[in-house]
Amino acid sequence: MIMLILNPSIIVTMNRTMQIIKDGYLGIEEGAIVYLSDKKPSDCEDIIRLPGRVILPGFINTHTHVAMTLLRGLKDDVDLQTWLMKYILPVEKQLKPTDVYYGALHGIAEMIKSGTTTFMDMYYHEIEVAKAAADARIRAMLTYGSADVFFNVTPEEEFKKAKKFRDELQELISSRGLEDFLYFAYGPHSPYGCTKELLLLIREAANRDGSRIHIHLSETQSEVDESLKIRKMTPIEYLDSIGFLKNDVMAAHVVWPTDKDIDILCRRGTHVLHNPTSNLKLASGIAPIPKLLEKNVNVALATDGPASNNRLDMWKEITLAALIHKGFLRDPEAIPAETALKMATINGALALGLENRLGSLEIGKFADFIIINIKDALESTPFHDIYSMLVYALDSRYIESVWIHGDELYKKKGGFKTIDIDRTREKVEEIRNRLLTEAGVK
Amino acid sequence: MIMLILNPSIIVTMNRTMQIIKDGYLGIEEGAIVYLSDKKPSDCEDIIRLPGRVILPGFINTHTHVAMTLLRGLKDDVDLQTWLMKYILPVEKQLKPTDVYYGALHGIAEMIKSGTTTFMDMYYHEIEVAKAAADARIRAMLTYGSADVFFNVTPEEEFKKAKKFRDELQELISSRGLEDFLYFAYGPHSPYGCTKELLLLIREAANRDGSRIHIHLSETQSEVDESLKIRKMTPIEYLDSIGFLKNDVMAAHVVWPTDKDIDILCRRGTHVLHNPTSNLKLASGIAPIPKLLEKNVNVALATDGPASNNRLDMWKEITLAALIHKGFLRDPEAIPAETALKMATINGALALGLENRLGSLEIGKFADFIIINIKDALESTPFHDIYSMLVYALDSRYIESVWIHGDELYKKKGGFKTIDIDRTREKVEEIRNRLLTEAGVK
Repeated sequence: MIMLILNPSIIVTMNRTMQIIKDGYLGIEEGAIVYLSDKKPSDCEDIIRLPGRVILPGFINTHTHVAMTLLRGLKDDVDLQTWLMKYILPVEKQLKPTDVYYGALHGIAEMIKSGTTTFMDMYYHEIEVAKAAADARIRAMLTYGSADVFFNVTPEEEFKKAKKFRDELQELISSRGLEDFLYFAYGPHSPYGCTKELLLLIREAANRDGSRIHIHLSETQSEVDESLKIRKMTPIEYLDSIGFLKNDVMAAHVVWPTDKDIDILCRRGTHVLHNPTSNLKLASGIAPIPKLLEKNVNVALATDGPASNNRLDMWKEITLAALIHKGFLRDPEAIPAETALKMATINGALALGLENRLGSLEIGKFADFIIINIKDALESTPFHDIYSMLVYALDSRYIESVWIHGDELYKKKGGFKTIDIDRTREKVEEIRNRLLTEAGVK
Repeated sequence: MIMLILNPSIIVTMNRTMQIIKDGYLGIEEGAIVYLSDKKPSDCEDIIRLPGRVILPGFINTHTHVAMTLLRGLKDDVDLQTWLMKYILPVEKQLKPTDVYYGALHGIAEMIKSGTTTFMDMYYHEIEVAKAAADARIRAMLTYGSADVFFNVTPEEEFKKAKKFRDELQELISSRGLEDFLYFAYGPHSPYGCTKELLLLIREAANRDGSRIHIHLSETQSEVDESLKIRKMTPIEYLDSIGFLKNDVMAAHVVWPTDKDIDILCRRGTHVLHNPTSNLKLASGIAPIPKLLEKNVNVALATDGPASNNRLDMWKEITLAALIHKGFLRDPEAIPAETALKMATINGALALGLENRLGSLEIGKFADFIIINIKDALESTPFHDIYSMLVYALDSRYIESVWIHGDELYKKKGGFKTIDIDRTREKVEEIRNRLLTEAGVK
């Protein structure tokens, strides 16, 4: 037997029955989970005992622009227009492909360290994000952010760029055997960043090739107001009116859906990606997540890009998602701890259409998980309930190791297996200095 | 010279001009700051170099019930009545004095580790909290939670308990020479937990002895509604009508003040203690903090008790305070990073009336500070702005050491100087098991 067996105090499976296995055994072989039980396997001698440890599925960060680590903290606490026009856009104009590679690699390191094992991205020079993910050996679904309106090009020209990225990514996947790690999706930026023609080109392409579609949707009230003014339809009504919304669409934010919008999302099976920190920090508002969940819309969690957060730590989003809706709706039962954890794991897998391989610890799924040392945390005393402890009392600092595809990519004592973090940090500082000089931003 | 000199990369003073000292020198002698400059002192040989480190004043947690670590996670995600009546109160009835001592000591360890150097508390058996604070050598202002209505006793009887606690605390302070560490205050629980007679007894006593008064105020909308029904006055109007509100009153929560209430608080100089996590978790609502600040009400930060949070980590409250009001008010400029940090430091000192000794790094103030290793954090790359980095990107995990009165009480590598944390944890688990059995709570 070459199977690796881990034996922690608690396995939080996040499976359909939310099974908790005490003193359980998790067996891994060739990147997948092959054994899961509270009984010791009879045919295995090599067991790694993990007393005081909890194993949890890795987090799925369903919406980010990871290379924006380069711009983190460039300017905060100002209005969106100033932030975007005076700081972010001038700097982004100077971005070179290798800048994106290093920005992404740095962000991927942060994500791995804080328990994310799969992420969904949208940015420019996206093939560089793919290369960084490939080098780091993290799982990722990647999109080029298509926006013919912003870039002032024809829908066909812009669509070509998405197809070019698809081909480049396919080449990277084939040449490096990364079929289980990297996934392509379309990334039309938003209903206001794309023409109807581009949206339809993408819709038809996704119908043909079965790819996911990742889009920003109803993020701000002004986006909805503008859409109502122009089309007498909300952004969601508009997308539905052109046949865009299906169950392969992942809609980021959805802070301002009407009741009718929610019915549409429910009917189409469209997934919602909730970014609580970003929605607060950019003053977009507080998304009606409990209502979406009540209407059976699948809601997954995300960090958004590190320039509008300013972290890539999914655990922070889990805690915030469990807190904010209670206070905002004045309902202490809104988003219980278990629900917040589901949003960061199995709901993310459902959103990506990878629920057969990700999002919970079950035999046959990929061995993507984190090991938490609860004895390191003073906040784990006294022990009452594992979900409450994880969501309200602990955070990602107690992650002892992070495993992707059965491979221990990060160890608290020992660092990263696949990332030269010192070099990455140096490069990021260097690039940031060059970008600010070139952009004339102080 | 016996002066100890620290030389970090950055000193964030939080003084009146929000001075930042790069490559600065902080000199400590007999528990106080005696030197602070970007120039090397000429007469000192022993300098501790701290490259990549930031020194920040210790946090002041202005409202907690620290011994409630014992009840953390007992039950979450249920309505307030169920939580209080079926879980918290039955268990609290079983509390013995030594239980409170160990619960408090455990919570104090959590606070020190996460950067709190002074706290304000309210609970039963409060002298035990004082003993725990004394043993840990943390600074604290302590109140017995007076509530003749809840306990169904006469105002005089209840007031006697506060005086008894005052005498016991005075005795503890004198016998152990803790004049600079422990402070007495009155703690009338709330306008609905106390009769008018008790509130006036306390008001008069505070007028005589100069002590602070710590009270829960306008925490929930139902508290305000009830007060309007009974007295045709909001809780704040009511307290003002009996001459209770002055600039020695620290009002916890204040989630539901009217505009008239805010004018009263401003006129009286009453301090507000903001508990963002607790207000969300217990579904009390979101306090109008930006409006209070705009009207020049002093607002300090707090964690509330660990049963309604479930942490005692002030850094978490700083980040949340900087985020939540932006999203709720849809104003990206609400509570900038600097303001959130002030609320956790100098504003806390003002609330406690100890602004001459605490809350900022200035010559003559107590040497209460934390050392942060920003190089430990991937999120500190790239470096743009120190306040943004501290508030939005980092958290208490990067605290390397915590100093109170010039004494290094906690070191990441080395643990606690004054607390036997393993024994404390064992005691807390043991007590929790006994309490639950005695209370018949499963």
